[in-house]
Amino acid sequence: MTTANFVPTPHTTLKRLPQRGFYEREAVYAILDEAFICHVGFVVDGRPLVIPTSFARSGDELYLHGSAASRMLRALSGAVSVCVTVTLVDGLVLARSAFHHSINYRSVVIFGQAALIEDLEQKRRALEAFTEHVIPGRWAEVREPNEQELKATSVLALPLAEASAKIRTGGPKDDEEDYTQPVWSGVLPLLTVTGAPEADEYTPAAMPVPAYVLQYDRKKLTNE
Amino acid sequence: MTTANFVPTPHTTLKRLPQRGFYEREAVYAILDEAFICHVGFVVDGRPLVIPTSFARSGDELYLHGSAASRMLRALSGAVSVCVTVTLVDGLVLARSAFHHSINYRSVVIFGQAALIEDLEQKRRALEAFTEHVIPGRWAEVREPNEQELKATSVLALPLAEASAKIRTGGPKDDEEDYTQPVWSGVLPLLTVTGAPEADEYTPAAMPVPAYVLQYDRKKLTNE
Repeated sequence: MTTANFVPTPHTTLKRLPQRGFYEREAVYAILDEAFICHVGFVVDGRPLVIPTSFARSGDELYLHGSAASRMLRALSGAVSVCVTVTLVDGLVLARSAFHHSINYRSVVIFGQAALIEDLEQKRRALEAFTEHVIPGRWAEVREPNEQELKATSVLALPLAEASAKIRTGGPKDDEEDYTQPVWSGVLPLLTVTGAPEADEYTPAAMPVPAYVLQYDRKKLTNE
Repeated sequence: MTTANFVPTPHTTLKRLPQRGFYEREAVYAILDEAFICHVGFVVDGRPLVIPTSFARSGDELYLHGSAASRMLRALSGAVSVCVTVTLVDGLVLARSAFHHSINYRSVVIFGQAALIEDLEQKRRALEAFTEHVIPGRWAEVREPNEQELKATSVLALPLAEASAKIRTGGPKDDEEDYTQPVWSGVLPLLTVTGAPEADEYTPAAMPVPAYVLQYDRKKLTNE
């Protein structure tokens, strides 16, 4: 992985609130590594389409995958411009005035063109990286994809070349004259947690839940 | 609010996995009411742009808002095609084969054109609906927007006319011959919870945290 930071472009430069923009590769990758759902935007017949899907980062590439028959995968494999956006919501920012309410969040926007990974062995490695991004520890336990499954799966690699992060943290910023309003103000943190794992009917009752399931915690997924 | 269901269009009809598609207004609105973050897709100079932002539903309209100076708000107020996607992630679906791993989710995709709300009183009511969508109970406590703040805020209304939901629930579907694999399989539920509210430095220590903050629970936000 390269350590060079992203170079702001007209598409990734924040015009308003520039203090919320981050171009350090580390900052961008920390958000990508904590998340696993992205929203993929592309243009079909001049109209925008935004599809939620899972993703993985490996080095300086972002992987998308899906059925080879999926409309999105087929559209994106044709060297078209794509915008991939990843968003983590950290809390509600409650101010004394309606106007100054906000949301604490960390987001990444990536622009580029994705390319199909055709080679089956490369595809297998990308799918391993994919599974390990979503739930580290899982790949070693499960049956690996066979050739038919590999062929039925399309994997796209999007180079992480034009990207930026946008981050808001901290409490509300009220107007000076509003600080005396008798209104509880601050941040209500929001976080994603796991519920109790639900074994399916074919899993023997005596089979222990794996540690990587019990201890699943995306906050702990660090950068390479 | 109308009770008529959405009519599938070429853009909202699921071609693959049609059993995951839902066109009932109630199903779509239940997802919109539990969520408050959407991803807005639009086309700028032929390229896709996807921006995360908060939203509110009121009746058969979806509201977006932001600074009147924001690029997104200015772009969308010009009668352009927009795609708004809302996604709730409910869990990781862990199968015995890598191939059959999946994610339980509920998403909504909306297509249309948004229109600026120009009338200040209408805008004020939309912002009230907005605040009450994100955190019910808050509007009555805070200082309402003044005329200058109303003018600095753009509110867009997107008619809920062309929309559909996509929902996956339940456990993994493995290939018959894989059910004997000795791999723990099932669902790891993921949910969004609140952390301890963090009062800001101007909130008196003796001021109680409001009940609507302490009991914040998006799952309880029901339809009209």
